[in-house]
Amino acid sequence: MADGGGEPDQLAGERATAQFDVDGMKVAWAGSRHAVEVADRMARLVASDPVFRKDTRTMLSRKELFKDTLKKAAHAWKRIVELRLTEEEANLLRLYVDQPGYVDLHWGMFVPAIKGQGTEEQQKKWLPMAYKFQIIGCYAQTELGHGSNVQGLETTATFDPSADEFVMHSPTLTSSKWWPGGLGKASTHAVVYARLITEGKDYGIHGFIVQLRSLDDHSPLPGVTLGDIGGKFGSGAYNSMDNGVLRFDHVRIPRDQMLMRLSQVTREGKYVHSDVPKQLLYGTMVYVRQTIVADASKALSRAVCIAVRYSAIRKQFGSQDGGPETQVLNYKTQQSRLFPLLASAYAYRFVGQWLKWLYTDVTQKLEAKDYSTLPEAHACTAGLKSVTTSATADAIEECRKLCGGHGYLNSSGLPELFAVYVPACTYEGDNVVLLLQVSVVLHLVARFLMKTVAQVATGKQPVGTIAYMGNIQHLMQCKSAVNTAEDWLNPAAIKEVFEARALRMAVNCAQNISKAPSQEEGFSELSPDLLEAAVAHVQLIIVTKFIEKLQEDIPGPGVKEQLQKLCSIYALHLLHKHLGDFLSTGCITARQGALANELLGKLYAQVRPNAVALVDAFDYTDHYLGSVLGRYDGDVYPALYEEAWKDPLNETVVPDGYQEHLRPLLKQQLKLSRL
Amino acid sequence: MADGGGEPDQLAGERATAQFDVDGMKVAWAGSRHAVEVADRMARLVASDPVFRKDTRTMLSRKELFKDTLKKAAHAWKRIVELRLTEEEANLLRLYVDQPGYVDLHWGMFVPAIKGQGTEEQQKKWLPMAYKFQIIGCYAQTELGHGSNVQGLETTATFDPSADEFVMHSPTLTSSKWWPGGLGKASTHAVVYARLITEGKDYGIHGFIVQLRSLDDHSPLPGVTLGDIGGKFGSGAYNSMDNGVLRFDHVRIPRDQMLMRLSQVTREGKYVHSDVPKQLLYGTMVYVRQTIVADASKALSRAVCIAVRYSAIRKQFGSQDGGPETQVLNYKTQQSRLFPLLASAYAYRFVGQWLKWLYTDVTQKLEAKDYSTLPEAHACTAGLKSVTTSATADAIEECRKLCGGHGYLNSSGLPELFAVYVPACTYEGDNVVLLLQVSVVLHLVARFLMKTVAQVATGKQPVGTIAYMGNIQHLMQCKSAVNTAEDWLNPAAIKEVFEARALRMAVNCAQNISKAPSQEEGFSELSPDLLEAAVAHVQLIIVTKFIEKLQEDIPGPGVKEQLQKLCSIYALHLLHKHLGDFLSTGCITARQGALANELLGKLYAQVRPNAVALVDAFDYTDHYLGSVLGRYDGDVYPALYEEAWKDPLNETVVPDGYQEHLRPLLKQQLKLSRL
Repeated sequence: MADGGGEPDQLAGERATAQFDVDGMKVAWAGSRHAVEVADRMARLVASDPVFRKDTRTMLSRKELFKDTLKKAAHAWKRIVELRLTEEEANLLRLYVDQPGYVDLHWGMFVPAIKGQGTEEQQKKWLPMAYKFQIIGCYAQTELGHGSNVQGLETTATFDPSADEFVMHSPTLTSSKWWPGGLGKASTHAVVYARLITEGKDYGIHGFIVQLRSLDDHSPLPGVTLGDIGGKFGSGAYNSMDNGVLRFDHVRIPRDQMLMRLSQVTREGKYVHSDVPKQLLYGTMVYVRQTIVADASKALSRAVCIAVRYSAIRKQFGSQDGGPETQVLNYKTQQSRLFPLLASAYAYRFVGQWLKWLYTDVTQKLEAKDYSTLPEAHACTAGLKSVTTSATADAIEECRKLCGGHGYLNSSGLPELFAVYVPACTYEGDNVVLLLQVSVVLHLVARFLMKTVAQVATGKQPVGTIAYMGNIQHLMQCKSAVNTAEDWLNPAAIKEVFEARALRMAVNCAQNISKAPSQEEGFSELSPDLLEAAVAHVQLIIVTKFIEKLQEDIPGPGVKEQLQKLCSIYALHLLHKHLGDFLSTGCITARQGALANELLGKLYAQVRPNAVALVDAFDYTDHYLGSVLGRYDGDVYPALYEEAWKDPLNETVVPDGYQEHLRPLLKQQLKLSRL
Repeated sequence: MADGGGEPDQLAGERATAQFDVDGMKVAWAGSRHAVEVADRMARLVASDPVFRKDTRTMLSRKELFKDTLKKAAHAWKRIVELRLTEEEANLLRLYVDQPGYVDLHWGMFVPAIKGQGTEEQQKKWLPMAYKFQIIGCYAQTELGHGSNVQGLETTATFDPSADEFVMHSPTLTSSKWWPGGLGKASTHAVVYARLITEGKDYGIHGFIVQLRSLDDHSPLPGVTLGDIGGKFGSGAYNSMDNGVLRFDHVRIPRDQMLMRLSQVTREGKYVHSDVPKQLLYGTMVYVRQTIVADASKALSRAVCIAVRYSAIRKQFGSQDGGPETQVLNYKTQQSRLFPLLASAYAYRFVGQWLKWLYTDVTQKLEAKDYSTLPEAHACTAGLKSVTTSATADAIEECRKLCGGHGYLNSSGLPELFAVYVPACTYEGDNVVLLLQVSVVLHLVARFLMKTVAQVATGKQPVGTIAYMGNIQHLMQCKSAVNTAEDWLNPAAIKEVFEARALRMAVNCAQNISKAPSQEEGFSELSPDLLEAAVAHVQLIIVTKFIEKLQEDIPGPGVKEQLQKLCSIYALHLLHKHLGDFLSTGCITARQGALANELLGKLYAQVRPNAVALVDAFDYTDHYLGSVLGRYDGDVYPALYEEAWKDPLNETVVPDGYQEHLRPLLKQQLKLSRL
């Protein structure tokens, strides 16, 4: 949607060719009519407020950018309070402000950590202050020398029974807390993870609430060293966040600031476990990963929206003798790179919606003390997180390339979109209960698959997203019956080959591991193969959830038909990309692979007239997109031209430095000085 | 090599395990003993000069960065003149200064354009001024609405016989020159490409030398609008370059400023061709692409050097109970992602060395008026440019991810390395005789392959990199004889399957095109398949040139053995990645594919102890690498910690903006204001 204004709509022709109800597609994308309405309202609220402007963000210095972020955060809070926004509305408002800042960690990590790991008493004490922003909190886990491996953290919290206090200390340089967002400059408090030591014994990593800065003048408390860790990838992007460094020099906190829901240290210094089951914490992990998958579909859809619209505007070649050029969106090569990304945006959106349901289901089961589905939910969300974030980062960069040279300009929005997104690949949000690296996460999925394969062999029936493994007899030997290109339109045909591929790759790994001298050695040697098997399993989940979505009632003329095409494109482009998997496991023949490719070409042609409308259905304002190339009205070139003049370098016609460094060169004064 | 200093060498243990002569490898990499020596000398000259420091470059504002670039360019010129450097030395000095700027375009595009397209008289007039920097030139081809398609340019140069002048004009907004480096702020002159119109007729695109700015005060001449086009991807990176916008409002230049080597306009306005063959221009294209491939190996090797060294320093997991963690370089998953990139760096280096020879060969043949090998050289260099630049951009980003979270910090050097490199994928240097997009280039290769396939069918024997197609009888039906993993160590086994794959994919395309209603329609419909066939052909060239390199005498104990392993890794990782190609064309069986994968795992283990020494052989100074993570001495963590404090945000403990935007929030003044 446009933010308003009366420019001519250069994309009107594209919109007229759509063969489906865009409004219905908006509902399918957003999840409900209500979701469309509230998102639309919040997006327009942000877009129309001059404080939230971001068109010159990439030109700001680090200090200006950080100050601007503080300003926007305060203004957002003011609007949230003034307008008495609901939590849903407030979250959406923050989303559309679209500038990373300390509030993300305050609401996204600090508050949930206290809720999840604090006792009721602790929650009563700290949460009201946090809710009112009387304190600002962050989540201090990772250290300079220790990222994903929580068990390797070095910071210590040593109990001193004489004072009933913990002594927080950073014993080495590598134990410096490093990366936590909001830590560097904004936060007054942190949940700090440290090795709990009491009675001379190391009880491993626990969380502690630690005040870092004075509430009077914001200066660091005695013994606390705080700073920002420096510039990060891109202009604007994540540089609005004060990722921080923190060192403790024997800083004392009261005993009751240890988060004590799962375990406690008594007045005497005894370490005791509570009877709260540890599994409760996994619920949070499922929640966080679900939001990360949802974020992937948001970031990907923004990039795709920009690339599709600009590909309809941009013209190139098509005529040898100076006649009109062709829209690049008409080129098969452009379609074959762009439309699978469009399909992926929808695929991730729907698997994200399913994960929302899964989280509710897991929560209910946890409350009923049913932990049976946790391992599967844990592995499946970890895998989905890993696969969708990696693919999304690559896809944003691909969208940038698909916009040609202009995609390299900050005004295209794509460099910032990429730079701000990529941390999602490395971290679970840079700051999550378990900071797991992509490879580690997939490893986890792989191990889970191996376990399941072993269990299936003993006759145990798997459930959830691994239920298909129970069908092992059929899947190990089935041959696809596809005989024409159109046979690949059948969801059952797709599902069968994706299931067979995933299962056969897992079984191959299991067999090869069993040949190794030890299981650990086998795991280590075969880890690259295991990762590929895990990816195959996760791709199957995404394909399956897309197919299941299409079995629901989806209102609006033509909406379901378009989604069916996108689902086929999503699955078949994966089949083409991983053709080696499908062929080497004998799931399909070379001819069936060629038929899939043939169908893909036809589907691209069918999506072509609907492409612009399919990205309109994301319902993004020009403000949120933040891209001259992705403008709703398509009036790209005058806007690009206008943006250029805003660069500080254009403040003077003759550049600063001319007198000192250019004029002497041109006047040969440099050379003469030598003679 | 270290720049000097006495830090402990944390990587000494890694260096001690190397099984080859690093010095010998340096010679193999650089091409000769002389090349090692001169590069080393120039690199140290730059690294030891405080003016060339770049460690705070990403923190500079756009204006500061641009001024810094002017300063470095002037200082470099001063040193070149003072030290009476040879052209080879001067080029290396500029390379190691490592900051894009107007001089790149002056030497790389403006001077060669006049040399290649100017008459002897024109060269005599303009080149001496350019050589002495009395004028600064750039290359103004692309326009706001027209990138790769030179024929679509709109700028006009209309001959006015009454004044014996051309009138340069920008008739539309989209005809604004857009992107040329050095144009925005620095250049005094440009070679401008425009439609030549004389006697009422449009003769297409020609080059003109146009003065843009006053040589007295650097202000734009009347009728000339000049500016910078705005910020680009990343901090630092290409923002040191003043990519510019240029509009003409009926600007007049003398007739003799049209570049007239190939065609002229007479005093009366007649358009006439000279007898200089057009093919001469292709020599320049081959030259430019050869440098682009060489640049790819440089950029890739820098990223790989950083990632390999830091992977030897960084430790993670490996022990459940708090014992010492494992170097990430020991993980198979890390090796399987990183070592193929290490192998690719060497592969691109050697194919680049071969291209240097090819350029000499083409030049000699052109001088002898032998144009027979031009089409092949044209297609092959275009393809190599396209494949190596795309793979390099992806690889730099992969290296960044392989460094974990710290790779996201500017101090890692990887964000800037990526952001400054990616334009190479979109442009032939952003500013080349023929600006061709990746897909367009591969299309060209594909068309060339189709033509060759057709010719082979009629019995014509192909030469050069397509000679293998003459072996069509064998290659269309051969089956690989590989029976054990070690059989894949045989270069002939590798070459056969890569040749068979490339040829069969090309023949498949040709057959499918012949079924289309028309050849043009077939080309259009099958273009995604054609691109894949072209990539297969180009990968074959790279593999072949690596194998041929190994047939040469390569001195130094163990040097050739290491290169043989890297060659196998390069080829086999491609085979694994494109397994679908090899299986679907029946070149290998699934079992042979699995054997290749098995061998890959063994080769990774063999390369492991040599990995750090293999990147040492690139012989990069810490200054040139520009990465805290890639330091020669491996002393990463203290350096990371120290770098952080340089960020402007750390100038004050309490951040700018606290009083206005944080304190009111914390003190509840925002909320109270509502009540």
